[in-house]
Parts: sequence; structure tokens; C-alpha cells
Amino acid sequence: MIHPELATLLCFLTTDAKVDPDLLQQALQKAIDISFNMVSIDGDTSPNDTVLLLANGLAHNEAIHSGSRSGEKFEQALIEVCLSLAKQIARDGEGATKLIEVTVEGALTWGDARVAARSIAASSLVKAAVHGSDPNWGRVISALGQSKAEIDPSRIDLYLGELCLFSGGHPLLFDKAKAILILSQDEVPIKLCLNLGPEKATAWGCDLSEEYVTINSTYTT
Amino acid sequence: MIHPELATLLCFLTTDAKVDPDLLQQALQKAIDISFNMVSIDGDTSPNDTVLLLANGLAHNEAIHSGSRSGEKFEQALIEVCLSLAKQIARDGEGATKLIEVTVEGALTWGDARVAARSIAASSLVKAAVHGSDPNWGRVISALGQSKAEIDPSRIDLYLGELCLFSGGHPLLFDKAKAILILSQDEVPIKLCLNLGPEKATAWGCDLSEEYVTINSTYTT
Repeated sequence: MIHPELATLLCFLTTDAKVDPDLLQQALQKAIDISFNMVSIDGDTSPNDTVLLLANGLAHNEAIHSGSRSGEKFEQALIEVCLSLAKQIARDGEGATKLIEVTVEGALTWGDARVAARSIAASSLVKAAVHGSDPNWGRVISALGQSKAEIDPSRIDLYLGELCLFSGGHPLLFDKAKAILILSQDEVPIKLCLNLGPEKATAWGCDLSEEYVTINSTYTT
Repeated sequence: MIHPELATLLCFLTTDAKVDPDLLQQALQKAIDISFNMVSIDGDTSPNDTVLLLANGLAHNEAIHSGSRSGEKFEQALIEVCLSLAKQIARDGEGATKLIEVTVEGALTWGDARVAARSIAASSLVKAAVHGSDPNWGRVISALGQSKAEIDPSRIDLYLGELCLFSGGHPLLFDKAKAILILSQDEVPIKLCLNLGPEKATAWGCDLSEEYVTINSTYTT
């Protein structure tokens, strides 16, 4: 129930650092956009999404401001924490047995990269294929097309880990046993190179298992 | 794999009637918009969607034109056929045991009504709840909110068949046994009255079963 914004989860981030409130807000928004807002469990949202960042200043450091070196370090640390939590959320999806990490590179715009990565990570058919360790590249390409991101089919390269399954608009003859091995891992990395521009985004999801259905069909209000 | 446009299905409609080609195209578009384009199995599309309407004129009738009484009758008949086929598609979804019919009434715009009905029919959580015959009105309201359709929560009424579960922004005490009985039917009718305007739309989907996952995770390319 976590998509496309964080849902049914209250996330509290705390730090002893003394940080300028403007930087706090701006750093949190940036971190959320590439972490919590790039997670999908099943395409469903809930009404109570909250991420709070509290800085109490107990460290008595010199206040950290935007644009400074310490500001950048703070932002980077916050991103690391948010990414770690976001990936834990995806991995912890109902009935999930695997974390799926979808990276889309070479997009024309950041918006295209985001929407493409999220569309693939949220596709029921992609998630079911990953559950069954089926290297079904067609479902990935199809979910990409469905995203409405700008693409040129003849320029797409698709990788499972380091294994290229599809290049320049054509499926390749690949080592299926190796593909199944990658799909059987705890973390399944899917990468698409659109070869159209400089933008990149990563989204996370989980496989779709029979247990997901059991959990969500027997839950009673 | 059928959403939001018809997917992986080639649909051929034929008639012996002699019909003006403009009317054919216009009637088909209208019929498709409220039938095939309102069906979702799992939120995934495919690249080969086709609905063709062929009229060979063998009936040797006077040509049917737009705006005439016979034109209206032809349009109505075409809509009936398309609706019947669209519902059969939803009912025939992988692993489906039930047809879900979601009607949204009282929307401000037709676009709002359509997007709201489709969002609910396509929600994995709603579909899993229907599978388990769980009268989980919260998931329906949540999928409605997620659709971005214009709503006023305090004016929403939600019905399962004739049974009102939620009215004026509040859940009601309802007969749970009766709700479960309705949810156990072959066809599960869900109706939302937004009480904001005159527009209405209906979407169809199916429940999400463990078998859906089994079918789609063991399918191999």
C-alpha cells in the first residue's frame, strides 16, 4: 500500500545537529524525492503519509546552512538514511521475497526517468515475473512504454545486473541460466539505458507473490 | 495485462448493415470509450491493441447515417456488443473468480468519473479485498482519493450493491453478513455517489487471486 507517495507509514528522522530550518526543509524534500517517493509496493496509497525531520541542536555545532560544505555533507547523509529506509520499505512489502531496483538512465528529462523507473517497479506483471525468476524482458519494455516517458524503441538497452537482454530495439540471445541466477537473488537490479539524454532515476519495488494476495484478501476491517 | 487501453486482444466486430463510414468510426470510438477503455485486469498494457469494425453492406438496407433514428439504434446496438465483450474480458482475467463493476456517479466531469471508476477497479488492494469477500470500504475510498478526481470527502456515499457502507464522509454500521454475501457473488457491484455534479462512468475489473500470481510468475518467455 505504498505508492506513489509514502503511505501508512510515519517516518521520524532526528538529529542532534544544529541546522538552519530552511536547509532542513530543502534537504528533506530533495532526499524524499529520490527515496520514499520512488517506492511502490502495489500501486496503492493511503491517507496518512508523513516524514518528519527534527533537529534539536544538542550537538552545539555552528549552525549548518545551505550552500556550505557542511550543508552538502548533511544533505548527503540525509539522502543515505532516506534511501536505506525506502529500500527497507520495499523489501518489507506484504509477501515480498525480493527487492527490485529499477534504474533508468539516458532519459531526456528527470521526470521521464522517474516516471519510467516507477512504472516498471510498479508493474504487476514485472513483479510477478521477478517472483518466478522469469527473465521476461517484454514485460519491462511494455511497462516502460506504458509510462509515457519519451523513448525511442530502437535505442533502448535493457540489463539484468550486468547481463544485457535487449539492445538497440532487439532482444539478444542471452545466457538464461545466468539470468535466472540474477533473478533469484535477494536484490534484483534492472537497468534501462534510453540513450536519449543525461537524466537518471532509480525506483524500488518488490516481487508479487501469492502470499501478497493471501495477506490482503484475508485482512478484515 | 489489459489496462488502460485494450491490450493483447484483437477484437473484430462485423455487421451486414450498410453504414456510412463516418458514423462507423464515430460510433466505434464512443462505444470503445465506455467499454474496452474502461476495463483493467492488472494495470498493465501490451503493445498490440486492436478493435476493428467492419460493415459489408450485404443487408442492402438504406445507408445508415449519423443523426438519424437508425443511426442512434446502430450506435446503441454497438455499445451493447462492446459492453458485453468488455465485461467478458474482465471476467476472464488471469485467475479471476469475480467480475467487479465500479460505477461512479455525481462527478463534476466525465473525466473525473472515468478516472475515479478506473482507479478503484484497478486497485490491487480493492481487488484482493473483493477476492476475500472483505467489505473493506477504506480501500475503495483510498483508491478514489488516489485517482485525483475532484471529490469532497464529506459528500461521498459508497454502496455495495444496494447496501450503503459509507455516507456523507462517515462509515455506517452495516450488516456485515449481507455485505459478504454481495461480495461472494459472481458480479460485485460497487457504486460511489460523489454528489458534486451530473457525470457518471462505469469501469470493470476482476478480483486478484493467488492464481493470478501463479499464472504470471510461472509463465516463461
